Amino acid sequence: MKAVILASGQGSRMGYKLKPMLKVAGRKIIDRTIILLKPYVNEFVFVIRKDCREIEEYLERHWKGLIKYKIVKNPEPERGNGYTLLLASEVVGKDEFILTMGDHIYSKNFVEKAVKLKGLIGDFNPKYIDVSEATKVRVEIGKTGKRVKDIGKKLKTFDCLDTGFFILDNKAFEVARRVAERKKIVELSDVIRELKPEVSEVSGELWIDIDTPDDLKVARKLLVRLSIKSIGDGYISRHLNRKISTKISEYLVDYITPNQATMIAFFVGLLSSLLVFFNLPAAGILYQFSSILDGIDGEIARASLRTSKFGEWVDSILDRYVDFFFLLSVSLYLIKQNMFLTAELIIAMFALFGSIMVSYSTEKFKASYSRSAYECVSSLRYIPGKRDERIFLETLLCILNRPLMLLVLIGVLSNIKVIATFVAITVNRCTLGE
Amino acid sequence: MKAVILASGQGSRMGYKLKPMLKVAGRKIIDRTIILLKPYVNEFVFVIRKDCREIEEYLERHWKGLIKYKIVKNPEPERGNGYTLLLASEVVGKDEFILTMGDHIYSKNFVEKAVKLKGLIGDFNPKYIDVSEATKVRVEIGKTGKRVKDIGKKLKTFDCLDTGFFILDNKAFEVARRVAERKKIVELSDVIRELKPEVSEVSGELWIDIDTPDDLKVARKLLVRLSIKSIGDGYISRHLNRKISTKISEYLVDYITPNQATMIAFFVGLLSSLLVFFNLPAAGILYQFSSILDGIDGEIARASLRTSKFGEWVDSILDRYVDFFFLLSVSLYLIKQNMFLTAELIIAMFALFGSIMVSYSTEKFKASYSRSAYECVSSLRYIPGKRDERIFLETLLCILNRPLMLLVLIGVLSNIKVIATFVAITVNRCTLGE
Repeated sequence: MKAVILASGQGSRMGYKLKPMLKVAGRKIIDRTIILLKPYVNEFVFVIRKDCREIEEYLERHWKGLIKYKIVKNPEPERGNGYTLLLASEVVGKDEFILTMGDHIYSKNFVEKAVKLKGLIGDFNPKYIDVSEATKVRVEIGKTGKRVKDIGKKLKTFDCLDTGFFILDNKAFEVARRVAERKKIVELSDVIRELKPEVSEVSGELWIDIDTPDDLKVARKLLVRLSIKSIGDGYISRHLNRKISTKISEYLVDYITPNQATMIAFFVGLLSSLLVFFNLPAAGILYQFSSILDGIDGEIARASLRTSKFGEWVDSILDRYVDFFFLLSVSLYLIKQNMFLTAELIIAMFALFGSIMVSYSTEKFKASYSRSAYECVSSLRYIPGKRDERIFLETLLCILNRPLMLLVLIGVLSNIKVIATFVAITVNRCTLGE
Repeated sequence: MKAVILASGQGSRMGYKLKPMLKVAGRKIIDRTIILLKPYVNEFVFVIRKDCREIEEYLERHWKGLIKYKIVKNPEPERGNGYTLLLASEVVGKDEFILTMGDHIYSKNFVEKAVKLKGLIGDFNPKYIDVSEATKVRVEIGKTGKRVKDIGKKLKTFDCLDTGFFILDNKAFEVARRVAERKKIVELSDVIRELKPEVSEVSGELWIDIDTPDDLKVARKLLVRLSIKSIGDGYISRHLNRKISTKISEYLVDYITPNQATMIAFFVGLLSSLLVFFNLPAAGILYQFSSILDGIDGEIARASLRTSKFGEWVDSILDRYVDFFFLLSVSLYLIKQNMFLTAELIIAMFALFGSIMVSYSTEKFKASYSRSAYECVSSLRYIPGKRDERIFLETLLCILNRPLMLLVLIGVLSNIKVIATFVAITVNRCTLGE
């Protein structure tokens, strides 16, 4: 399937900036569109303003060889988006194509659903959009399902919003041509109103039309907020860490890469274990702070469409190192206080072993079953002892200056979690399949 | 595709036992055939002797509802395998079908290759078979590729062996019918000689025709030997442990399940860490023995077609527990000898952390990439420090009564391996894909 990206807008409310080239949450809008559509599209068609070299040069520098694309130049961008669409007709042919706007941002979920549908993709339950600014659609239900009855920004009664995402065929070009013969300025709404395409529903997913600098900020915030991958998050993560980390991610997403965020959290974690020898409560607080920072790499990666398996792997390995050094430091701190005996050694070893095994047991599950243990065996989610929860507990005990109790509780909690995981998976083994 | 299993033989050289019902390496031959063909077959047709209730009852008890199958009864089994095949014609129809013998054992590799081919599957490089007893095939190369020129046990010149595995269509029934009109006894060779089917090659894979009690023993040995999954095996495993464990597996495969083997290795491992407090050299030797036993569960599972993701997961978790308890015991042993100071604590914690992280780093890789790290980054295979190698080293140091040196070397070796793994994967990250 081809994809037509209309990118001839003037960005009048954006200080006449080229909207597809704006960076939102670490990615230019044009890159977002390409990355998300790439799996479904064999050729992109960008319709740009005739005098605009910037997009052309950018595509040549960054995407040439990676995607197949054509550029169509629009000598009369002032004639409106419907006219811009018409210009694409020469290179699109007769097959179905995706039509979308160069200044719209969509979530991965939205695109995954929309590409399987037909006609105008309507949002019947908009969650993230300022309805007053949006293009509204009136739907009529005929013999062949839902169709567009009317469309426009000023409709008083309407059924859904126009998401700016369409799956059309060459009838759309015919209609655009007819309208262009009658009128000088051809808005896309004029074409759609006459074409009366099917209406398909993708409701409640993120899509944003970037018109003003405020829209940019809202988009960044939403992309970061929606980047939380909650499966596997513990109680502390859900109710404390994520609330802070997403705020930080919003600030950082345009400036640092996910791998840089991983390294920052790692070094703060290492620093906290050094601090144990100087000030235990402060060390505990810094450890908890590193636990908050630990969420940022994933949030930035998902928000900026830069997730990588390598990044996931590195993050996980470095987390284990941080936990190891912190527990080692606490154990050495106990020796320094002459509180270290045989029992303490056993406790320290159990705490270390349990802490790593909590993660090992679920990662090994994923390695064997190629699925997340938390998805397969939902009872696992309710067993406390995940990393965010352990670190929070460790912080409290550091503040209370109870290092031995810290090792005891972590040793007990983490090993109980491992054993409970073992039992839960064993009990459910027959339902897990081969 | 349907599969026709000829199971009307008399087992004359087997003391008139029903050969498909014989257990080889923990599985009845009939179960092996069903398990291996199941992914490719939508209906099985078993042609059995008319007076034989045993196979019928067995299928009803163990496979009803799990596979679709029909039973065809052969009132004249003494008329030979070609006649037996003819009886299947009524239920097979016109499409291609798999034809195989109820007394043949095939490896998974063999079946995976053979089901994609056509005609008689010939072995041009038999590795595991007594050629003098096998059915030989003379091949002629015509316009349409290789075809059977002649077939028989006593051919003096021949090109390949008949593996007893065929992909045929209903022409085979026509020929069988013609031969049966002429002759009383119709061997399958008579049909094939006249049919002159295409010859396809699957060479060097395991297939065995079970005729005598000796064949059974050979088959068991081969199935266990070929069950070694060498990827991820270290040097000690390849050159010592596997040589012993396969011998033990040959004895045990008919008597214990893979999960029982896992538990035995686990308890021997735990016992070895208890023994540390009584006799360090003996503990080391027992630990090494548990490491040998640790290979048995996988060997038995693969040889008896009982591999399971759950089994793999449990084995991996229990290995970590054994390693933990052994290192804990050695550390406590040092305390008992009053050799335990700050440095020793650090060493013990590093040894424990490194030992688990060696496994964690590659399992987490598999969880992220859904592929084995050892397959993706082949240089990883040459970094020493795998479990079999660590345990062998620990055993040596226990025998030499050097517990502190044991912790030092394991701490150094395992952590170097983790860091080297980290470097190797980081260097190769761009070739690993997303």
